[in-house]
Order: sequence, then C-alpha cells, then structure tokens
Amino acid sequence: MGESSMNLVESTTRNNKMEEVERLEEIDPESNNPLNQTLLKRNRTLSSNPLALVGEKVSYIESLDYEINENDLFKHGWRSRSRVEALQYIFLKWLLAFLVGFLTGIIATLINLAVENIAGYKFLVVLKYINTERYLTGFLYFTGINFILTFAASILCVCFAPTAAGPGIPEIKAYLNGVDTPNMYGATTLIVKIFGSIGAVSAGLDLGKEGPLVHIGSCIASLLGQGGTDNYKIKWRWLRYFNNDRDRRDLITCGASSGVCAAFRSPVGGVLFALEEVATWWRSALLWRTFFSTAVVVVVLRAFIEICNSGKCGLFGAGGLIMFDVSNVTVSYHVMDILPVAVIGIIGGLLGSLYNHLLHKVLRVYNLINQKGKIHKLLLSLAVVLFTSVCQYGLPYLAKCTPCDSSIADSESVCPSNGRSGNFKQFNCPPGHYNDLATLLLTTNDDAVRNIFSTNTPYEYQPSSLIIFFALYCILGLITFGIAVPTGLFLPIILMGSAYGRLLGMIMGPHTKIDQGLFAVLGAASLMAGSMRMTVSLCVIFLELTSNLLLLPITMIVLLIAKTVGDCFNPSIYEIILHLKGLPFMDANPESWMRNLTVGELVDVKPAVISLQGVEKVSKIVDVLKNTTHNGFPVMDDGIVPPVGQANGATELHGLILRAHLIQALKKKFFLNERRRTEEWEVREKFTWVELAEREGNIEEVAITMEEMEMFVDLHPLTNTTPFTVLESISVAKAMILFRQVGLRHLLVVPKYQASGVCPVIGILTRQDLLAHNILIVFPHLAKSKSRQKRN
Amino acid sequence: MGESSMNLVESTTRNNKMEEVERLEEIDPESNNPLNQTLLKRNRTLSSNPLALVGEKVSYIESLDYEINENDLFKHGWRSRSRVEALQYIFLKWLLAFLVGFLTGIIATLINLAVENIAGYKFLVVLKYINTERYLTGFLYFTGINFILTFAASILCVCFAPTAAGPGIPEIKAYLNGVDTPNMYGATTLIVKIFGSIGAVSAGLDLGKEGPLVHIGSCIASLLGQGGTDNYKIKWRWLRYFNNDRDRRDLITCGASSGVCAAFRSPVGGVLFALEEVATWWRSALLWRTFFSTAVVVVVLRAFIEICNSGKCGLFGAGGLIMFDVSNVTVSYHVMDILPVAVIGIIGGLLGSLYNHLLHKVLRVYNLINQKGKIHKLLLSLAVVLFTSVCQYGLPYLAKCTPCDSSIADSESVCPSNGRSGNFKQFNCPPGHYNDLATLLLTTNDDAVRNIFSTNTPYEYQPSSLIIFFALYCILGLITFGIAVPTGLFLPIILMGSAYGRLLGMIMGPHTKIDQGLFAVLGAASLMAGSMRMTVSLCVIFLELTSNLLLLPITMIVLLIAKTVGDCFNPSIYEIILHLKGLPFMDANPESWMRNLTVGELVDVKPAVISLQGVEKVSKIVDVLKNTTHNGFPVMDDGIVPPVGQANGATELHGLILRAHLIQALKKKFFLNERRRTEEWEVREKFTWVELAEREGNIEEVAITMEEMEMFVDLHPLTNTTPFTVLESISVAKAMILFRQVGLRHLLVVPKYQASGVCPVIGILTRQDLLAHNILIVFPHLAKSKSRQKRN
Repeated sequence: MGESSMNLVESTTRNNKMEEVERLEEIDPESNNPLNQTLLKRNRTLSSNPLALVGEKVSYIESLDYEINENDLFKHGWRSRSRVEALQYIFLKWLLAFLVGFLTGIIATLINLAVENIAGYKFLVVLKYINTERYLTGFLYFTGINFILTFAASILCVCFAPTAAGPGIPEIKAYLNGVDTPNMYGATTLIVKIFGSIGAVSAGLDLGKEGPLVHIGSCIASLLGQGGTDNYKIKWRWLRYFNNDRDRRDLITCGASSGVCAAFRSPVGGVLFALEEVATWWRSALLWRTFFSTAVVVVVLRAFIEICNSGKCGLFGAGGLIMFDVSNVTVSYHVMDILPVAVIGIIGGLLGSLYNHLLHKVLRVYNLINQKGKIHKLLLSLAVVLFTSVCQYGLPYLAKCTPCDSSIADSESVCPSNGRSGNFKQFNCPPGHYNDLATLLLTTNDDAVRNIFSTNTPYEYQPSSLIIFFALYCILGLITFGIAVPTGLFLPIILMGSAYGRLLGMIMGPHTKIDQGLFAVLGAASLMAGSMRMTVSLCVIFLELTSNLLLLPITMIVLLIAKTVGDCFNPSIYEIILHLKGLPFMDANPESWMRNLTVGELVDVKPAVISLQGVEKVSKIVDVLKNTTHNGFPVMDDGIVPPVGQANGATELHGLILRAHLIQALKKKFFLNERRRTEEWEVREKFTWVELAEREGNIEEVAITMEEMEMFVDLHPLTNTTPFTVLESISVAKAMILFRQVGLRHLLVVPKYQASGVCPVIGILTRQDLLAHNILIVFPHLAKSKSRQKRN
Repeated sequence: MGESSMNLVESTTRNNKMEEVERLEEIDPESNNPLNQTLLKRNRTLSSNPLALVGEKVSYIESLDYEINENDLFKHGWRSRSRVEALQYIFLKWLLAFLVGFLTGIIATLINLAVENIAGYKFLVVLKYINTERYLTGFLYFTGINFILTFAASILCVCFAPTAAGPGIPEIKAYLNGVDTPNMYGATTLIVKIFGSIGAVSAGLDLGKEGPLVHIGSCIASLLGQGGTDNYKIKWRWLRYFNNDRDRRDLITCGASSGVCAAFRSPVGGVLFALEEVATWWRSALLWRTFFSTAVVVVVLRAFIEICNSGKCGLFGAGGLIMFDVSNVTVSYHVMDILPVAVIGIIGGLLGSLYNHLLHKVLRVYNLINQKGKIHKLLLSLAVVLFTSVCQYGLPYLAKCTPCDSSIADSESVCPSNGRSGNFKQFNCPPGHYNDLATLLLTTNDDAVRNIFSTNTPYEYQPSSLIIFFALYCILGLITFGIAVPTGLFLPIILMGSAYGRLLGMIMGPHTKIDQGLFAVLGAASLMAGSMRMTVSLCVIFLELTSNLLLLPITMIVLLIAKTVGDCFNPSIYEIILHLKGLPFMDANPESWMRNLTVGELVDVKPAVISLQGVEKVSKIVDVLKNTTHNGFPVMDDGIVPPVGQANGATELHGLILRAHLIQALKKKFFLNERRRTEEWEVREKFTWVELAEREGNIEEVAITMEEMEMFVDLHPLTNTTPFTVLESISVAKAMILFRQVGLRHLLVVPKYQASGVCPVIGILTRQDLLAHNILIVFPHLAKSKSRQKRN
C-alpha cells in the first residue's frame, strides 16, 4: 500500500522534474543535454530516465565504471608497473586517507568554533535585552540575526551550489552504489556547504551539522583524490593512479566515515555508519583504512579540545564538540525495566515511520514549490526561519516560572543562569526562578540536547513544557528539512526523540529506577532507529556519544524493537529520499517477481544492440556516437575460424568498448588507411593507460574531416576483452545480484544457442534496465505478484 | 620469501595428509573414499585436492551450494509459496536467531560456572597444603588434578570428536567461505567441545575458552537450523525452509558472533568479529540479525550475573564473566604519550608476526606427531600439561617475597591473600609478604589477566617476575595450541601481550603518566593485532572488555600500528592455519598475475567437460556418476532450431544439473520409456522442491535393474537453468571476483565464438581450480611475477 502510493508520488516527481529540466534548459546555459527524445518514449520499451535530483539541482546522471577495464593497454600498463610505482600507490592511498581525516577534523573544528561563537554572541545580545525587560527589542534582534544568517546560507545554496542543499547522504549513498552525481563533490559545493552549514546552524534552525559534515568529508576526499578542482588540478604524477572510479569510491567512503566521526566524535560509529548505511561494496581492507581516517579525526579533535580548554576559542565552551555526557550516571536496571524500554522502542518505531511518511509528503510539496524558481526557494527558507524564530522566542512566555531547587542544581549548573548556555535559564522569570522552556528553546540545538539529556534532575521540566517542545520540534523537523540550506537529519530526530523519551520517563517515573535523562537518550535512539533503521552503527554512536557502556544492553533492545516496528510500515528515510530524488539505487535484494523474468525477455523489449566491428570505419563510429546515448558497444569479429570448430564464418565477441575510449580514439586521430590490426607499439605511441581512465570528452567537440571519415580505427587494443556476461535464460534476480555484487556498468547478454549466424551478444543491460520500477512499466502483470515481497 | 617457504611447508603437510589418509583407511572403517586416484595425478592437469584437516581429522571436503538452484521445481515452489509460509519463514529466522543467542549464553554460563568451581576447589586444596608448608604434597595434588582433567579432555577429543580439537575458528571461516567441513557442527562435536573446554581450561593449560565458545555457538546454530543431529531430527515442517546452505550460513554467522559475545561479554565486538574476521559475504540484514543474537546473549549473561551475585554459584565470584575492569582508571595522556604508544604498537607487530611464524613451525611438527596415531596425540597433550603444571608450581619459588605495601593495597584486595583469587598471593612467603609470581601463575588464566591488568599498583611486580612470566607464556603459547583439546588463541596472546606491555610500562614509567595496568592492556591489544590482524573488532572488544571509552583513541593507534608492522612479515594467524589445514579458502583479492591468465587457458589444462543430454539414457547417467567425482554437469539440447537463426543443428545449453539431483532422479526411478520431455505434473508427483535441497545420497547405494538401464530420464525439470557463465577470454582475476562475490560452486566457461559445432560450454571451473596454489603448479612461470603482489 505504502509502496504503490510512493510510486505514484515518484512518477509525479519525475514528471515535475522533466518540466523543470525543460525550463532549466531555457534559462541555464550549461545544460545542453539531448534529453527530450529519451524522455518522450514510454510504452513498450524499457525506459531509462537519466535525470535525478542531486541536492536541489536536476542533473543528468550516469553510471560509474567500477569494473576493471582489461584492455591491451591496461594489461601492458599493469605488467610494466614497477615495484616503486606499486609502493607509491600504497603510500599515496594511506597519505590520502590521512589527509581526508586530518582536513575533515580541521573543518569540523572550524565549523564548531564558528557556530558556537556566532550563536553565542547572538544569545548574549538577546539575553542582555531580556534582562533589561526590553523583550520586543530582544525579539527583533533575535529574529533579525537568524533571518540574515539564513538568508546568507540560502542565497549561497540557491545561487552558487544547489547540490550543497540538503544532507547529501542520499547522494553519497547513490554514488557509492555506482551512480555518478555531477557537481556533488566540487570545490564550490564544499565551500557553500561549510559556510551554509555555519549560517543555518547558527540561525537556530532545526537542523544539524552532522549530515553536512558527512558530505564535507566526502567532498574533501573527492577533491584530494583528483588533485584539486576540475579547473585547477595539481599535476602530480602520483595522483594519476587515483584517476579511476574504484579508488575514488574508497576515498569517498573514508570521507563519509570521517564526517560521521567528526560530527559525533565517534570513530567506531563512523566506520560502522559508512558500512551499514552508506557503502554498497565493502572489503576488509577498506574497514581498516576508514578506521585509520577516523582515528586521525579523533586525534585532531582531541588536540583542538586541549587548545580550547585553555580558553583560546572565544565563546566555545561546554557546547560544541564535547558531546552529551551522561557518563556520570550509574545505570541500574533490572529485568523488569525491560517493559518501559520496550514501550520506548515501540513508540519510537511508530513515531519514526510516521515521521518518514509525513516528511515524504512535505518534501513532495516542497519540490513543487522549489521548482518555481530561485526566489521561491529563498522565500521558503526565510518563511521557515521566521516561524522558527517566532516560536523559539515566543513560546517560553507560555511556561510557568519554576523556583530553583538548590538541592538539584549541582556545582556546575547555576540556577538561574543568564549566560549563553546553562541548564536553568532565567529568561523572563523573577530572581531565584527559571523558565524551563527557555532552557530548551533559547539555546543552540547542541545545548538543548545536552539540557534535555541532563541527569539527576527529575523535577527540572514541567510536562507541559516538554509537550510544547515536542510539538514544536515535530513541526520544525518536518518543515525545515526540505529548505535550500545544508540540512542534517540527525539532530532534529534526536531533539524530537529526547523530548518524547523524557516525557515517557516522567509518566513512568514512579515505576522504574531509570533516570529521566536516560529516558531522553533512549527516546532519541528509538526515534533514530525508527526513522533511519540503522542498528549497530547507531548503537555504537550512542555509546560513544554518551560515554556510558552500561547503557549498551538497553540501547540495543530499544534500537532493535524500534527498527522492527518501523520496518512494518515503510522503508528508511534515506531510501524514501533516494526514491524521491529519482536516483537509480540498486537494492541488495531483488524483488521476488524478478525470479520469474529472464534477462532474455528484458532484452527483447529493448532496442537492438548496436555493435561495432573489430576494425571499424570512422564514419560508422561517428554515426553511432552521435545517434545513440549508449556508453558501451560490443565489438565483434566476423568470419573467424574458431580453433576447435569446423565451420567457417563464425562470429567472435571481442569485448566491449566504452564511449569515452571511442571519443579518445577519434580525438587522437588513431586512424588507419586500410582495414588492418595494429601492432602494440602503434597503440602505445598514441595512448597511455592513464589517459584512458579519463571519462571526459564529447563527440560534438571532435572535428573530423571528410577524408578521415573514410579511414579505419582498430578498436581491438582499446576494447575491454573481459566483460561480464550472462546467458539469456538467467533470471533478472540473479543478473541483478551479479550486477550489484561485482559493481558493473554494462552486462552483456549472450544467447544460450550455439549456431552460426547468431549474434554473440543479444543485448546489454544497464543499471536502469534492472531497476524494479522501470521493469514494471513494461511488464505491469508482474506487479500483481509484487506485494508478496521477499524479505529477510 | 615467507610466501615460498610457506608453500613448501604446505605441500609437505599435504603429502603428510595423504599418508595419513592411507593409514586411516586401513584402520578407520568409516573412511571409504575413493581418494587414491585423485591424489596420484599431479602433472599437467589442474589438481584438486579434496582433503583438508578439520579439527584434528582429515576429511573429504566439498563446496557448499550457496547459489540459488533455479530449476522448474524451485520456481514452482517459489511461486506457490503462500503468504503464510513466507511469514513462517521470517518468524522462524528470528526465532532461531533468538535461540542461538539464548543457548550460547546458557552454555557459556555453565562453562564459566564449571571452570570457576573446578579450578577454585583445586586451588583451595593446593593452598591448604602450601599454608602448612607441605609443598610436595601440594605439587602432587596440583599436577595430578591437572593431569586428570587434561586426560579427560584429550581422550574425549581424540576418541569421540577429533573435529572438536583446536579453536574451530579457521574451519568456521572456511565454511562461511563455501567449504563444507564435515562433522564440524554435529552434536558429538558440541558436547565434546563443551566438556573438553571445561577440562582443559580448569587444568590451567595456556588456552582460553573464547575460541571454543565461537565454535560452540556455531554448532548450536547448525544443529538448530537442521532441527537436531543427523540421526535424530525433529520433523518440524517449518524447518524445511532452512534446509539449504544459504540459510545455514546466516545462522552459523549468528552463532559465531554469539560465541564471541559470550566469551568477552562484547555484543558489538561479537558482531564486528564475525564481520571482519569470520564471514565472507555480508548483508545489512545479517548485521541486524547477528546483533539481535548478541543482544540476547548479553541479557542472558546479565541475568546470570544477577543470580550469582546473590551467592548461589559456588566459588564463582570475581572471576569468570566479569571481565578485566579498568573503568575506574582516569586515563590522562598528552600528545607526547603517543611515542610510548607507538613503541608498544611496533613491538606488538614484530612479536605478533614472530609468534605467527614460530607457531606455524610448531604446528607443522605437531602435525607429524599427531599423524602417528591416537596414543601419540594423547601423550603430547599430557606432556604439555605436565610441563605447564611443573612450571606454574615451581617457578614462583624463584621469585623474591615482597613486603605488602598497605598504601597500595586498596580495600578490595587483601595483602597477603590465601584465598582462591586475589592480587597478592602469600604462597611460600612469611606473613606480611607476597609472592608476585605466584599471583600470576598459581591462578586461573582469567584471574592472571585481571591481576596483570590491575591499575594503581605500580610497584606490585618485580621486573624479573614479569620476565619469567613472559618467557614461560611465550613457550606455553607455542606448545599448547596444537594439542588435541579445544584450544583458543585469544587468552594466550592476551597473557603474553599484557606481560610485555607491563614490562614496557615499567621501563617507561618515569617518562609517562600512563598507568602500568593500561600499558598491560595496550600490550595485549598490540599483540592481538600483530598476530590476528584485526582492527575495528579488536578495538571494540577491548573497549567493551575494559569498559573505558577514554582508552579508545590510543587503542586505535596501537592496533593500527601493530597490524601495519605485522602485515609486513606474514599473513594473519588464521590465514596461516587455513593454509596449513589445506582448506581451500578463497581470498578477497586475486593475485596480480591472475590478470595475465584467461579462464580459457585454465580450462585447457582440465579434463574435457562431461555433459549430459536434456533427455538422457539411464545407463549414461549411472556411468558418469560412477566414473567421475564431479558435482555438476552441463545439460545440452542438440538439434534445436533457434528462434532467430536460420541454421539448423544448433546446440542449446539448458543449464547445469547437480550430482545430488541426478542421484535423486535415479533413486526415485523418475524413468521414461521413450525419449520425451515430461509434463510439469509428472515431475511434481515425484519430487518436492524441499526434497531437492537434500544433499545426501551416494551412487553406490542406488540399485538399478538392467531394464531400467535402457530407459530415459528427462533432466530438464531438475536442471538449474540459470548458471553463471563467463567468456573464455575473461581473466582468472575477474572470474575469481565473480566466483567469490556471488558465492558460486560451479562457473561455466562459454566460448567467445558463435558457430555451429562449437560446444556451448568449454569448461567448468570450481573453487579448487581458482586457488592460486593449484594454478601455480600447472603454470609455474607465473610464479615469477608472483612476488609483485597486489596489495591494498
């Protein structure tokens, strides 16, 4: 049920995107894609929609080449690689992993410093007015500063780097699954993401810096791997080994884990987050390398904390990196406490899936608004910040003042406090009293979490204040995520979850020994699991966040229950966003109906394969490149006498050639006057295997004279002779497993017959052909059996 | 260099194994394998050695069928599976995961109880004699009890379940990689492992219960999955869904993580251990299920500790499950402390690789001894226990008595103590003095670790005592591992590592603020990483073991350095043991020379493919089954008119049929009088898809009359129509990646030519054909480029 409605939504979004692209083409000079013809046909052929929403920008997406392209040049390059070069490669790999961690740590530090200082001075000014009872001026200051900060963040995102909007995690997930997301990891995106994130978080919006930090880590990794931005690359010879999609994938995984580690100061949690949520392929070696990166991040953060402890960081103090410390709590619980814990888990699962459902609807509406243009995007952001500021400043007036209880307030937390942070804010209360809602609302999000997690303070918050807080952050959590600034999902969910957890703790108070602060922690964990559906990584992140190992067993139970309950209703929030953005993500598990469809049937509804001869005429190549959008072409040799057979006229499949390599051959004028095979030295004179790793080049840019059109190109040395193949009788389910496990871009379908006159390749399958959504358009009868999904 | 010497060793071991098999055939009635002919040929054809050492038993190994066998019956069974059955399957999956965790927790509890009580009473008796200065009687008691316990453990292993000897982890690793290890997960093995482990650990041998617990968890998982032992199975209808290798693999992964969790009370560490070290394939869904199992284990252990805290567990007290608690230490370290930490890591890496090297040599010698027969195995174990007991009892006399320092001994640890445990043992010392070596030696291994980890006791141990302890446990660690009792590797390495760590702490003492107890912990971690080469899982295990999150950054650095140093010299200890046992483990990374060899070349040196017709004569099938040992046969149809081609006489590859299914067809007399295709109902009358999952059956047991020999069998409905294929031009490296990633048993090689008269299958590759070792025997020239290995 949820599934079908989602498809509906998705196709609406796709249509909207098409419209937007058409509009974009008019106004955006850089988009000159020949998309229209591919978008129009949608009947009995497998459609492949090459568009997706990357950040807030509709982009033309492609697959990445994770397969090793074993052509003659590569083999030669591989053989001739000296021991020194192999060592250079290993050294560079570890150096880059180090740099990724180091730079991510530094940037996370700077973001924290900036946020704490900007937000800190903002609150100091506002509190000064409040103390002198000039509430309106305070309000104007508060709202004005937030407005300006959001405006700056939003204008950066809208005008300079639309890909920097949103959390970035779904796009990283798609990239590591094999989908190229253009402009996602550029220098502009990185800079906009950093400053946008500082602005948005300082503005007190209900969003975190955690998601953006993951994206920032990945950007750093990508930029390092390619030696700079697209325009200004360092021409370091060593870096040429990294000029391939596989090594970049590994680096970006390191970047993502470093980002999580920097966000939560959680090295193991960062590695596990990348493993459980982000990465599609995983190797033991990668586990080790990401672990190294996160170790570096931790060391950098630690050094930074030591420096800041000596007071050199301005207003940076208890907030920022030193996370929610509940390590001083003695956790004592008994077997009977499993009941409240289970209740938290169940409610977390229900609320989490409800949040996913509602956020999906809101994002759909937001997509419609955002499509209307840059002004609309900007106005949406500003409307949200106005609403947020009004509520944050206005709602505390609803709360009653509570007298300070000197027995509760420990030596650290002053009551009432008038400083920037503090657990008992005076706000509008008389001396000796504090406003509990102001404690939660008139502060940075990090401090709000710390305050609501605070332990041994059972009577600090009134239930009414917590209900108001919870309701407000439910609304803010839904309306803030989709605006055009760098947003993160972690913190909003933690805020919501901790509020309901603490509320639950108050209700259960008399029946359990568990501290209310722990209830808040468990509530946050349950909502995270209910919405994001992670288990082990969340468990470790919470462990490292709270520095309390005794919490482990109950955290585990809460997470497992919340995920189980949530999975009954809808997929995880990241999967929903991936669908919504139209990113062709390949799931790990094929749908069960895919077992009843063979790839032969799938190939039948595709256009016929366009193949090239081993030695091909230039005009044919140009023709094929101009009139198709395919990225791989099978290369055949006719009239071969097979060594074992007696029949003449056999056709040999030589391999698969990539569009990029055909263009390279044309660009370099690798032409012959007659139809003959070239010698190895002829090829090596023209190409190096490093150049072949480049994916750039457009057929339109290649100028070819009329004489050259009649010449020939020997494609053999540039052809990948070892493409993966499947028999036409194989089921789509198995083909999909192969495709995903091995990380392919093209999968050749070969006939199960062996006879003369049969073409050795009857079709090529790509990522788009194997997506359930695309197959169901052509084979709608399969959808009937669709509801019976394979689970595991 | 290390590589080549290892190959030498391995081939020696293989030869030794061959001898042993021949010998075993004479004396062992159950071994009637037709092995001789396969073992003799070793020249220009790819040899496949189907023998390996499982535990201490030479077994005939096979590959597992992880591929989904998509034949007509399976497809029908899949389609007809109702929603209820799908829910049953999911429910059962989780129920089994729960039971695996629950039972592993219970058994771990019982083992701990038994060990603590047996060893506890042993020490009480011995201490009684020592207190009355009857040292010789004490020695005789001590040695006698240890001797009897080891004798019992060893006789169980030698006579009833040779597969229970050793840690079991390498065999589990191989199983999850796709190698069937027979008798490894039976009820006898489980029982022998439990009691053998209790005996061996109580006897004070230098071995742990950690490795055996991993094996015990896997045994429980396997027995639950198949519904009981081979002889007494529960015929629960629901369990039939689990009658396949894939689901059993998942369950055994759960079992292995539960075992680690039970051993170290480390739920996250258990999951990560299974992920990093044991499992070959991993899915996100599995991460979640193993996490659930370990959560159950933790709850069981916690309940057990609560019961024991009320004093109902006999002598079970501070020892046993409550692990090495260093959580009360305030870890304070600065950037300059990175130097001693790095030194620990480097030494740990050096010592770890040295240990691997020496253990490899010792195990080789032990294999020679063990081959001589059961008596020799027994004598070896008894010799080791005598040596251990003599050293443990005798060496403390060398230590000087130290006067008790009342300022150090805190309230918990009495000085001197005469009880079972305690940090300051009086032994032979005058009142007010303690013997520091007796504290470490005359105690259980768990207590020894706790004592050496003890913090805030900088002057407790004399350097000479620690040196003696370190030297003794180096020797014991090498000679104990290979004896015929259930042994674990974790604890010996922890003991060695902690000794050298504490020694280093003494040397560095004046220059650092790090506590000596922490040095011991770091030493243990570094030696583990240097020998086992794990990172993230070890880090989390140590985290959960010591309950001290502040240790995390320095533990990470130590682990990374130690692993890096160790990797320069040799592979991890588990890989060495895998090689030594001859288990055909498929590595994740192909060797670099594999890129220069195509599967076509590999197939050329194999015997020709034996294929069957779609409708085949019974006599031919019987003939093929009797005269080959292949487990899969391609099924062809001749004379087909392809729908697209014009040529008659095309050959169609219908698929691959398994030996087990051929035997089933013969057993069930699925015979036809004429050469025709059967209808679907005919097949379904004879077979159910559940039956086809069975792998049992031997061609020798099938009786076929002469008339039946002339009849036909329609193989189409039993044939897997969707085998994975590769072109003959693909490189071995890529084929190996495919083979491992998708989890195959047979990989069909198809020609790249398309012509009449060419057989559609030119070869079948199996696991053994893709092993580097086997390929190099046939293509020795490739070994030259071998030294230039691909690293990552």
